[in-house]
Amino acid sequence: MSINFSEVADRYRDELLGNVIPFWTDHSIDREHGGFFTCLNRQGKVYDTDKFVWLQGRQVWMFASLYNNVEKKEKWLEIAENGARFLEKHGRDNDGNWYFSLTADGRPLVAPYNIFSDCFAAMAFAQLEKATGEKKYSDIATGTFRNIIRRAGNPRGRYEKRIPGTRNLRSFSLPMILCNLALEIEHLLDREYVEEIISGCIEDVMDVFFDPVLGLIRENVNDDGSFSDTFEGRLINPGHGIEAMWFVMDLAERDGDRLLAEEAVRRTLHILENSWDEDYGGIYYFLDIKGSPLQQLEWDQKLWWVHMETLVSLIKGYRQTGNQECLKWFEKVHDYTWSHFPDREYGEWYGYLNRRGEVLIPSKGGKWKGCFHIPRGLYQVWKTAEKLK
Amino acid sequence: MSINFSEVADRYRDELLGNVIPFWTDHSIDREHGGFFTCLNRQGKVYDTDKFVWLQGRQVWMFASLYNNVEKKEKWLEIAENGARFLEKHGRDNDGNWYFSLTADGRPLVAPYNIFSDCFAAMAFAQLEKATGEKKYSDIATGTFRNIIRRAGNPRGRYEKRIPGTRNLRSFSLPMILCNLALEIEHLLDREYVEEIISGCIEDVMDVFFDPVLGLIRENVNDDGSFSDTFEGRLINPGHGIEAMWFVMDLAERDGDRLLAEEAVRRTLHILENSWDEDYGGIYYFLDIKGSPLQQLEWDQKLWWVHMETLVSLIKGYRQTGNQECLKWFEKVHDYTWSHFPDREYGEWYGYLNRRGEVLIPSKGGKWKGCFHIPRGLYQVWKTAEKLK
Repeated sequence: MSINFSEVADRYRDELLGNVIPFWTDHSIDREHGGFFTCLNRQGKVYDTDKFVWLQGRQVWMFASLYNNVEKKEKWLEIAENGARFLEKHGRDNDGNWYFSLTADGRPLVAPYNIFSDCFAAMAFAQLEKATGEKKYSDIATGTFRNIIRRAGNPRGRYEKRIPGTRNLRSFSLPMILCNLALEIEHLLDREYVEEIISGCIEDVMDVFFDPVLGLIRENVNDDGSFSDTFEGRLINPGHGIEAMWFVMDLAERDGDRLLAEEAVRRTLHILENSWDEDYGGIYYFLDIKGSPLQQLEWDQKLWWVHMETLVSLIKGYRQTGNQECLKWFEKVHDYTWSHFPDREYGEWYGYLNRRGEVLIPSKGGKWKGCFHIPRGLYQVWKTAEKLK
Repeated sequence: MSINFSEVADRYRDELLGNVIPFWTDHSIDREHGGFFTCLNRQGKVYDTDKFVWLQGRQVWMFASLYNNVEKKEKWLEIAENGARFLEKHGRDNDGNWYFSLTADGRPLVAPYNIFSDCFAAMAFAQLEKATGEKKYSDIATGTFRNIIRRAGNPRGRYEKRIPGTRNLRSFSLPMILCNLALEIEHLLDREYVEEIISGCIEDVMDVFFDPVLGLIRENVNDDGSFSDTFEGRLINPGHGIEAMWFVMDLAERDGDRLLAEEAVRRTLHILENSWDEDYGGIYYFLDIKGSPLQQLEWDQKLWWVHMETLVSLIKGYRQTGNQECLKWFEKVHDYTWSHFPDREYGEWYGYLNRRGEVLIPSKGGKWKGCFHIPRGLYQVWKTAEKLK
């Protein structure tokens, strides 16, 4: 099999710079209060003005990253700083924890129960520090990061509804995100501190949450790492597992660890084979590791981020290991993705398809989908394909 | 249009007593620890042993109700008391709040954040008191009921993640459930206290949460009763609205209030017309009152309880008002329901269908579906049809 990487690079770049980014610059900026609207309908019209800290941070990160890595466009930096000012002014409680959501004018709506608000804020301010060199951004990024590490043992804090002691579970999401965040923020931290965090995260992601018999990644495990035969313990989120593998490939590249890269590639392919819908195409959203009935009513849906993150893992995996299976799967996932998600009439991409690949919800953004996975993935595939030309 | 109510009564009774109840008596009883398993797969095999207080209470209620209203079978009372002993022993924290879930042997898993655990426990023990006359059951029922009323202003208590003051919303679910619970428990309470609660609930359900322009019931409103143009404020749950209407019809019958019954019938029909899927049949799970994109990825699915509760509202509505539209719709919803939900191979009914009416999750029970809506609805339609013979 051969792929024309030059064409791949052009296509992903053109989609990023010619469709997706203009959609967000045209429709999402709140010029009155700062920050971004992310609840955009199919046409890009704002249908809800609430501001979700996950998505505020992610969009700041995205525009700062474009400025740092694509082109020093003042407009991109301005957009990032517009979001950063809003977050800086309104985003945290008195203890420096990031709220989950805010009103359009910045009043807190939902308490800081969700540590990923903090993760995406740290990521945003660390990337913005790279763009500006401003110490205040560095302080917010590192202060938030240390707070995340401090809270990691009990991320939901007083909002934890599980009774301690009966069934203590650990969740895959946090070590997974830390694999990526550690690389995003390492220029601001002591080398030793970063190394310790990275080696802990790699161990979590590659060993603790890995089911060696089935070759799949568990979303939750008992706190001693063993399997929990419960709804949470049986849960598989294929997109999470595959996305984590490109975070690990980036760490493997950083450390020149070819064996780690090869293992991450094997796992990417295995999870993908296990979660591809042979009837309708696309990757399932959730599976049960024992095949038991799921509680997630959305289990069979096809989501934008799952497919985009898979494309990133496959092309990075191919570049690092030369594994031909990565190319075969890249072509298959690419074809599914491009024929189902982009909206050629009104721009940007749909987020939520049903099992058959039909549009389930036509909006371009909401409480969870913002300016992040599609543009970040397009950028990652573009830049990786360029290196393969 | 004419319906043979005798045939309807027979069919619903036979399904209740010949299929649904035997499925639960055969598969759900935990003879080791007491209580019920509700996570039953298509064949009735237990695939998860956690116990959810909503469903424990509902199954106690169901069997006590069969004993009280269908036949004094000792087996049914034993099953109800088996659940009640488990709940009594393990279900509450030291303040008398009901946990959300427990392990199979009764250790608390999830804290009492959900006031509906308390509602279904109160309903269970009040019905069991009717069966046995036991004061301890009465004490649990009335103590729990008073605790619900005390907590009603802030039902989630310390687990509330919304910041007080920014956007104070009231939710339809609690007044809706109280309309039913008040009737279930009134034999144990002072008449004046009950009247006050009932008139408050009717006002909430019929006025506060009602959008008079669109004729629909809002799931959440501002605390002054006004419309909140937010995700929560725009949400419509047609099944909730329609179910609430038969609770109101029961209250109307109790009070001989024919105008109230007629209004409840009009609203049932209007919500139903608004939420029927013209393309594939069935009633949508969620809608947005402005037609904006929803956050609920399951919005277009067809759920067991929605259809069963609708059948109850339609036949009760017909009996109380003679409105022929009720019969027309009863026939249509009956045909959809009976051709999609029952599992003729392994018994009981499916819970979750996709928009097209195909089985999405083949289990017969889980974290939310137990021995409740199907048998209660079959019983209600049976008994109402009998009165129409």
